[in-house]
Amino acid sequence: MTDTDSGPLAALDLARFAPLSMPSRLLLGPGPSPVHPRVSQALAAPTVGHLDPAFLALMDELQCLLRALFRTRNELTFAVSGTGSAGMEACLVNALEPGDRVVIGENGVFGGRMAEIASRLGCDVVRVSVPFGQALDPAAIGAALAAGKTKLLAVVHAETSTGVLQSIPELTRLAREAGALSLVDCVTSLGGVPVEIDEWGVDLAYSGTQKCLSCPPGLAPVTFSPRAVAALRARRSKVSSWYLDATMLLQYWGSERVYHHTAPINMLYALREAALLLCEEGLPRAHARHHLHHRALSAGLQALGLELPVAEALRIPQLNVVRIPHSARPEAELDGEVRGALLREHGIEVGGGLGPMKGRVWRIGLMGHGARRESVERVLGALEHVLQGAGAHITPGRALPAAQAIWQSEER
Amino acid sequence: MTDTDSGPLAALDLARFAPLSMPSRLLLGPGPSPVHPRVSQALAAPTVGHLDPAFLALMDELQCLLRALFRTRNELTFAVSGTGSAGMEACLVNALEPGDRVVIGENGVFGGRMAEIASRLGCDVVRVSVPFGQALDPAAIGAALAAGKTKLLAVVHAETSTGVLQSIPELTRLAREAGALSLVDCVTSLGGVPVEIDEWGVDLAYSGTQKCLSCPPGLAPVTFSPRAVAALRARRSKVSSWYLDATMLLQYWGSERVYHHTAPINMLYALREAALLLCEEGLPRAHARHHLHHRALSAGLQALGLELPVAEALRIPQLNVVRIPHSARPEAELDGEVRGALLREHGIEVGGGLGPMKGRVWRIGLMGHGARRESVERVLGALEHVLQGAGAHITPGRALPAAQAIWQSEER
Repeated sequence: MTDTDSGPLAALDLARFAPLSMPSRLLLGPGPSPVHPRVSQALAAPTVGHLDPAFLALMDELQCLLRALFRTRNELTFAVSGTGSAGMEACLVNALEPGDRVVIGENGVFGGRMAEIASRLGCDVVRVSVPFGQALDPAAIGAALAAGKTKLLAVVHAETSTGVLQSIPELTRLAREAGALSLVDCVTSLGGVPVEIDEWGVDLAYSGTQKCLSCPPGLAPVTFSPRAVAALRARRSKVSSWYLDATMLLQYWGSERVYHHTAPINMLYALREAALLLCEEGLPRAHARHHLHHRALSAGLQALGLELPVAEALRIPQLNVVRIPHSARPEAELDGEVRGALLREHGIEVGGGLGPMKGRVWRIGLMGHGARRESVERVLGALEHVLQGAGAHITPGRALPAAQAIWQSEER
Repeated sequence: MTDTDSGPLAALDLARFAPLSMPSRLLLGPGPSPVHPRVSQALAAPTVGHLDPAFLALMDELQCLLRALFRTRNELTFAVSGTGSAGMEACLVNALEPGDRVVIGENGVFGGRMAEIASRLGCDVVRVSVPFGQALDPAAIGAALAAGKTKLLAVVHAETSTGVLQSIPELTRLAREAGALSLVDCVTSLGGVPVEIDEWGVDLAYSGTQKCLSCPPGLAPVTFSPRAVAALRARRSKVSSWYLDATMLLQYWGSERVYHHTAPINMLYALREAALLLCEEGLPRAHARHHLHHRALSAGLQALGLELPVAEALRIPQLNVVRIPHSARPEAELDGEVRGALLREHGIEVGGGLGPMKGRVWRIGLMGHGARRESVERVLGALEHVLQGAGAHITPGRALPAAQAIWQSEER
């Protein structure tokens, strides 16, 4: 040790560390979304062991609830011990082996991320790309599947980076006809719009806790169809990731209860509560709620004079993309100023653009517990106030009435 | 959809799902360990966004605190978004490339796990094994390092499966002399016994939140030395795991704040609080506390007539391995009966044996917030009661006085 033991090895100046005090934010970005109070409470429940009978019973319950959310009978339905991206990686590492051909629909950042992961696995990656903001073209996907023996077709259901909702059934049908498995990213879709794993014939799907499930980030619900499990059991090589190896995880989540890694106990409490809340509300009602407040927000934003660049039929209700308006300043400058003011002065988080959309759009999430009238009213009021202050070209005074007209039409 | 829409696709019988109610357990197994009340409280703090200024400030604080715990100046010190095993995999995937030679010390289950992960990465894995319950032999490690150009030496500091504490400085010196990086598993050691990353010249280390940090499972603190970072930057191939790729994670944890994946916000609150608690207590005092109660527990267990199979000089204070005593029944039968009765009748969890130790030993953890006099008193009292009831050959009435003698000797 050096004689000037400064920095981290010296005694920390503990006076610098105030008691934890996080601000209360209205989370209307692309996730995390507002956490339901019952979920927060569950998170702080007493920790038990990962082989405790009480915990094993909770795991069984959680699996039932996740099957209900995914609308599937798939036995292998559980939560990966990581965030949504870990769920993505878990599905890909288990489905793919080096040399496998995989067709990936890419119309946003998350399709690109799947392609990146598959290429690190040594796969033959075929990207079927369309410009950000558009939906995938089934004919192009079909042609890519026909061009070679394909192991997997992977697509994103709700592209959080662009706000585009992808229709799935035709794509999974094409995959099945080509003898390929299908993988669908349901991170942002699950709980906000219909997800029908069995009816659509999806073989692998993953989601995240921090979008429409009203739960903090940290876990990734996944489901594997019997076909996906059969492919897993027929692998020629071991799964490249030990941590995400479903051949071992299914022995812990299944009846054998073989220890694999220590489960993230308290996050699983939270997810169980979050999934139960959604089942109590009922999925059709939850979807209708997301749709209603999306309509109200859209009407308000357009009445403000803002543009929604995604075609109406393709919009994800829970993730609203809006173009940054004209002002005297460059868009990217207004971007930072407006989002900063929303956060500081109004306690509201909205998202910036991702990838090529950075500095060009905002992303306003109405997800899970955040999909409520109060969220729409607050964000419209705050946006109008902040945009006026920033000298942006907007139409004041009309946003809230436009949103209210939607709610009223619904009440009639 | 079929016409008999039963099972998960039918309406769930929500009456089956009671409000979450987890039992209060005294967690004295190999982890998870008792969670400190301040940590539980932090876990339920309001969720904010992963790019919120308040959260970025918390990440900076957390990094300072983790550096203090690891006793390092390493810039790249952060928490992997997964459990301890994800930390293990994160260190190995970042340090190793296909074809790399890696020497792994194996004297328990977790050394074996490192070898398994490295072999899945396509490495040339050299296992230096000793029987479970013994420490690694530096001469054998040195010989293995000398037998070929080696990229990494990986060892476990505190082998949770056997209760053996490994001396590290000589091993890291051998690695350095051989031009290899060193990786040390500190999952069970960090916070319970001295861990000196810089002084010992450790290049990569990982830990877990659910042992001596008094925090629920779910995150893995890791640290990379400048040598490890240089090796990372000099890689010929991309890291096989996108989720665990430190070349990308360091851009989020570093000053660039480039979005990689959504951080597990609330678990990071909990870890910040847990690390702060340890720093407030002071590491030397925390180590002394673990050591004191270990001595009291050991004295009590031996006074009961139980055998501690690990040589005294090698014992991990926070994880006490005790042989299952003789009785009229086979050991494996007594194992289940006793642990079941401890849990059901006394609310105490102790661990069973792992791997070849299964059915032969119990593992009694005194970790973090669990390393207190009350834990020792309760587990000794309960063990005596349950073992007597089960007809095991023990000596009643002497355990608690033996433990008390240790505490009293300390007070003098």
